[in-house]
Amino acid sequence: MAGNSFGTQLRFTTFGESHGSQIGCVVDGVPAGLSLSEADIQPDLDRRKPGTSKYVTQRRESDEVTITSGVFEGRTTGTPIGLIIHNGDQRSKDYGEIKDQFRPGHADFTYWQKYGVRDYRGGGRSSARETAMRVAAGAIAKRILTEICPQPVAVRGAMVTMGSLGIDRANWQWDSVASNAFFCPDAQAADAWAVELDRLRKDGNSAGGVIEVVADGIPAGLGAPVYSKLDSDLAAALMSINAAKGVEIGDGFAAAALNGVGNADEMGVDNNGKPTFASNHAGGILGGISTGQPVVARLAIKPTSSILTPRASINRFGEPVSVVTKGRHDPCVAIRGVPVAEAMVAIVLADHLLQARAEGVPLTPRTWDSRED
Amino acid sequence: MAGNSFGTQLRFTTFGESHGSQIGCVVDGVPAGLSLSEADIQPDLDRRKPGTSKYVTQRRESDEVTITSGVFEGRTTGTPIGLIIHNGDQRSKDYGEIKDQFRPGHADFTYWQKYGVRDYRGGGRSSARETAMRVAAGAIAKRILTEICPQPVAVRGAMVTMGSLGIDRANWQWDSVASNAFFCPDAQAADAWAVELDRLRKDGNSAGGVIEVVADGIPAGLGAPVYSKLDSDLAAALMSINAAKGVEIGDGFAAAALNGVGNADEMGVDNNGKPTFASNHAGGILGGISTGQPVVARLAIKPTSSILTPRASINRFGEPVSVVTKGRHDPCVAIRGVPVAEAMVAIVLADHLLQARAEGVPLTPRTWDSRED
Amino acid sequence: MAGNSFGTQLRFTTFGESHGSQIGCVVDGVPAGLSLSEADIQPDLDRRKPGTSKYVTQRRESDEVTITSGVFEGRTTGTPIGLIIHNGDQRSKDYGEIKDQFRPGHADFTYWQKYGVRDYRGGGRSSARETAMRVAAGAIAKRILTEICPQPVAVRGAMVTMGSLGIDRANWQWDSVASNAFFCPDAQAADAWAVELDRLRKDGNSAGGVIEVVADGIPAGLGAPVYSKLDSDLAAALMSINAAKGVEIGDGFAAAALNGVGNADEMGVDNNGKPTFASNHAGGILGGISTGQPVVARLAIKPTSSILTPRASINRFGEPVSVVTKGRHDPCVAIRGVPVAEAMVAIVLADHLLQARAEGVPLTPRTWDSRED
Amino acid sequence: MAGNSFGTQLRFTTFGESHGSQIGCVVDGVPAGLSLSEADIQPDLDRRKPGTSKYVTQRRESDEVTITSGVFEGRTTGTPIGLIIHNGDQRSKDYGEIKDQFRPGHADFTYWQKYGVRDYRGGGRSSARETAMRVAAGAIAKRILTEICPQPVAVRGAMVTMGSLGIDRANWQWDSVASNAFFCPDAQAADAWAVELDRLRKDGNSAGGVIEVVADGIPAGLGAPVYSKLDSDLAAALMSINAAKGVEIGDGFAAAALNGVGNADEMGVDNNGKPTFASNHAGGILGGISTGQPVVARLAIKPTSSILTPRASINRFGEPVSVVTKGRHDPCVAIRGVPVAEAMVAIVLADHLLQARAEGVPLTPRTWDSRED
Repeated sequence: MAGNSFGTQLRFTTFGESHGSQIGCVVDGVPAGLSLSEADIQPDLDRRKPGTSKYVTQRRESDEVTITSGVFEGRTTGTPIGLIIHNGDQRSKDYGEIKDQFRPGHADFTYWQKYGVRDYRGGGRSSARETAMRVAAGAIAKRILTEICPQPVAVRGAMVTMGSLGIDRANWQWDSVASNAFFCPDAQAADAWAVELDRLRKDGNSAGGVIEVVADGIPAGLGAPVYSKLDSDLAAALMSINAAKGVEIGDGFAAAALNGVGNADEMGVDNNGKPTFASNHAGGILGGISTGQPVVARLAIKPTSSILTPRASINRFGEPVSVVTKGRHDPCVAIRGVPVAEAMVAIVLADHLLQARAEGVPLTPRTWDSRED
Repeated sequence: MAGNSFGTQLRFTTFGESHGSQIGCVVDGVPAGLSLSEADIQPDLDRRKPGTSKYVTQRRESDEVTITSGVFEGRTTGTPIGLIIHNGDQRSKDYGEIKDQFRPGHADFTYWQKYGVRDYRGGGRSSARETAMRVAAGAIAKRILTEICPQPVAVRGAMVTMGSLGIDRANWQWDSVASNAFFCPDAQAADAWAVELDRLRKDGNSAGGVIEVVADGIPAGLGAPVYSKLDSDLAAALMSINAAKGVEIGDGFAAAALNGVGNADEMGVDNNGKPTFASNHAGGILGGISTGQPVVARLAIKPTSSILTPRASINRFGEPVSVVTKGRHDPCVAIRGVPVAEAMVAIVLADHLLQARAEGVPLTPRTWDSRED
Repeated sequence: MAGNSFGTQLRFTTFGESHGSQIGCVVDGVPAGLSLSEADIQPDLDRRKPGTSKYVTQRRESDEVTITSGVFEGRTTGTPIGLIIHNGDQRSKDYGEIKDQFRPGHADFTYWQKYGVRDYRGGGRSSARETAMRVAAGAIAKRILTEICPQPVAVRGAMVTMGSLGIDRANWQWDSVASNAFFCPDAQAADAWAVELDRLRKDGNSAGGVIEVVADGIPAGLGAPVYSKLDSDLAAALMSINAAKGVEIGDGFAAAALNGVGNADEMGVDNNGKPTFASNHAGGILGGISTGQPVVARLAIKPTSSILTPRASINRFGEPVSVVTKGRHDPCVAIRGVPVAEAMVAIVLADHLLQARAEGVPLTPRTWDSRED
Repeated sequence: MAGNSFGTQLRFTTFGESHGSQIGCVVDGVPAGLSLSEADIQPDLDRRKPGTSKYVTQRRESDEVTITSGVFEGRTTGTPIGLIIHNGDQRSKDYGEIKDQFRPGHADFTYWQKYGVRDYRGGGRSSARETAMRVAAGAIAKRILTEICPQPVAVRGAMVTMGSLGIDRANWQWDSVASNAFFCPDAQAADAWAVELDRLRKDGNSAGGVIEVVADGIPAGLGAPVYSKLDSDLAAALMSINAAKGVEIGDGFAAAALNGVGNADEMGVDNNGKPTFASNHAGGILGGISTGQPVVARLAIKPTSSILTPRASINRFGEPVSVVTKGRHDPCVAIRGVPVAEAMVAIVLADHLLQARAEGVPLTPRTWDSRED
């Protein structure tokens, strides 16, 4: 419960602070015999990397990952995989008053109350820098899903609202996600978002956003019926991401406003005798267990708390102060949250996939029962 | 990961199915020396009990709880508390086609795919009957919070939307919650909800709803910084409730549409030198750790899947069927979900409270640092 | 960590005290589809039952187990299995001074120091009565082993020393174990033990003993390399049994007195190309992982602390007292410990067997690598 | 269950192989505010370090530890402590046949069966090199014990038998432990051991040994009553050490040969009204909970399997081979096991100490109950 590990069958533990010499991760429970190298991990890290556009922080980090253990001659050995990223940009600077102040919306005050001491440099452990390690672990989780699932798997994230602006779902193109600065699946919306975020940034302000992750190719039967439900674990995983304030599965809060007739995902059988669904209000999960439809989760990210507009606060001496957070901050942390959310979803799915093997759950659709049973 | 336990320091395990002889629960980690009897638990069970109005199921259950262990001469002994409720109403009936059918929106299909076998009577393990045990465990969690927290604690739930209808927050009265059939804090809204739910019910339809739980009196400093965050654990706890599709902390999804200036909870110091907040967009949690403000969580519950309107589906022989779910079902499961959500929040908070003691976290506000430090 | 659960994939939680109305157990993680009824469990319980000879306690308990959940139409459903045994013999008696005294060698003092309150009736939670539930869970573990392992499995316990008396291993007959009051595999030794234990009992004294458990048919490859090693988990499991003071795997302490040449278990290949071992000093475990040989564990049980000879002690008022423990006590608790030790070994093995499936470990010997690899 | 983490409140995870670039450890759950630097850890590492005498391996390793996270300005921050040791001596050598052979008594065969692939260089993950990280984590555990326990704590290990040779307990001097190559508390015995081990080593043979760890100053009340008993956790911890084959608490196996009268640790009260014990057969633990007496545990270590005398075995092609293990091996691995065993005991005690705080257990002796209660 010390709180720096996640997962059960696939369990990873991260360590390191924003301005320490390195951040690291241990991924335990990776099956032996998978081909794995840094090249499987680096592309996802590059998607989260700072400095890729003016809409993300300008901190300079190559975020180059090294595997220090658990892989031998290009294959996983079943032993824990150590991952290290050296922090390149530890600007030697004067932290000034920030070291004593509690920035509104940050963990400064709560860390101080809990621990009595804190590493104030760049937010220390509370910095989203930690999420680089989630992305690295997520890349390994994707390798596991791909290797073990009988059909092709894709776990993909996108940003679906930026501040008060949304998308037109009719324009959804996964290709667009990779081609704009917002991981936005609607190319037109992305242009409008750019204008809006420029405006906010220049105002010394920031924006929130909503991320959607869709996992295709996930077998039916993953999950648990009561407390380690697939949706429950996804909620925990996503809500653990910095600045998260809400999680939805399938229709989410919109489902609460529907009636039972409209919310029913009717079932049928296709020409090959496989079960089909007429809709996916459920987001691919019923009773905590995957249905075989795409798993759909959404995550609300609050606007960046580090802004140039002064806000009233206090310091650790109990004195009122006016806080202005200078420095190189993301004007919309939701953007770089996309690969992180994607990683967390992949990790939860891989965890339950391994667990399903322990339980003897078939990874392909069951043969229908015979009338004679 | 077998999935029938929840919590770490305060850990409970439930067992039993809807139509078995009994359901039960083991609550482990309750500190020794607390006064505890069935009378501390029964009132919360009575709030969740079926048959209290026409807006809930008419199944007849007294839901009378017995403590079978862990309490001696009226005080907890530190050993596991066994709780049993005998199932009174196990109607001996012909389950007919329902035993072979996969009802849309139910766990029927996913259980069959996962396990190959299922107890179809009343939903078996997937029935919300299991939540009676969560309520019982929650009542014990409330006792722990009350006993250990230095200031008075109240963990209270309410329903804030019923289907497409909401409330006027200006009318919020906790007293109203106890005096209508909907746990609705706005007495006027409750009247409108009654009309609407009557209409849906007569149409063979059902409604979803949103539940809000507010915990007052929670010390600052509870939680963990990265993966067992207080909000992450609350999300897991609430999303594990039957029919849950979304979870929010504080402003939740609305926060994603705010900008950083508007979302900041500015801080100050009161006349006693205690930290204060000008607002509570954060819902009492920053960086995964409680701020000392009220902890606020919301939960979206989908409309009841068991409806009288026929829906297309299939059976376990792979044949198309038309499903009509007769029987005594809640037209809006969110209603009886209120005490359940309240219980889960209390359990998470008590778990973190005990954990905070292990970590040496002070349960009262820290003294301000001195300038000389 | 509350300490009333054991296992990971196969996890059971017990509750109840010696003199409460019932003791119970929840077994979670049992795969779906196993045939299971009380008849699979009762025989092992009957072996542990009090009152079967003059060498065990005369407390009257039928120890009849009821399955309350998790089994439907004779097959496990994958949901938690609830087990209940009603306590028959809760003699309504005056506990007299015993309720205030700390009996030497008992948990009386440590419970008082830890909890400040204790259920003194029959030892409360610290009573070996709890081990009935371990035996019940162990019977289910044996069913899992039998069902999943490709070859026949036998997990059998025996007592190999009683006080200062041992056995002649040349006389070892598993059949003898079932035919004397000591679970002794050497029929001649059993006769001598009977004389000795009669003598001790009449002297108001008691005896310790050593239990050996042998598991045949366990596949190679179960376990983990560093901290959840098969031997490490066996040690935890066995040392958690009441009155346990030592655990050995294979040659155990005797191995520490050997030299490397003598301790080597040389390997070969049999006519079918299967790996063979010339000896089994290792007790079937190397590097924390099973070798495919019989798994051999031993457990030292201290002499019963409840004796009629007066011993000096203190009470909860800090006053010196002379303690004589009357009542119906086992003169040698190691005897009834045999089925308990057997159960714990079966539970650990079943837990690792399910885990091995999660990891994709083959349950039959691997095909030899080809020279071309 | 992936098996590379240990502990609950104080939880550490190790990673790295014998011949990788580094080995590492993450220690989670260390309370905030403790002063900590590499200087607190290095001395224990130096005691375990290779090359300190001719009785241990001549591999050249400085075993210099670096703290990479979790400490800020000399104090722990409550966040995970990352520890790294670079492997200095990764001799670039031809592994020859050893890479295909299964050395008797090693994990070679079981790793191959479990994983199908293994890092054969120096034993890979199964190498005792991993134990350096246990020692590092143990040094932090000792800091926790010292800081939180109200009286002075000492957790000290010694070797009490080397092969077939023992010690005279009348000669026990803790000072002697530090002044011979065997961590032997009897200086005279150490001389005899040296002669014997020289002889075995020259014969291409090796020796086993028994380690004893004594923890003084541990408060009464640490532990749990049923499955996370202090002795059960100690057994798991010690049995997880490489080459361990047996564990004892207090009198251990000798207790099984005692009778109840002789084994009773009679109690009294001292002049200050504190509880006293006339003996410590129990090794400081009753009913799974510490008594306040010294905690005493013993560990049997088998003789080193890597010997120069040829042994019959097979290779991964299923062919018979004769194995001779050249290289720089410890002739008696028990020696360097002493600081490792000490570390594991310290870790278990610190874990339970933190847990006791969660449970509200007083760390000083309870005030006696009043007669009026």
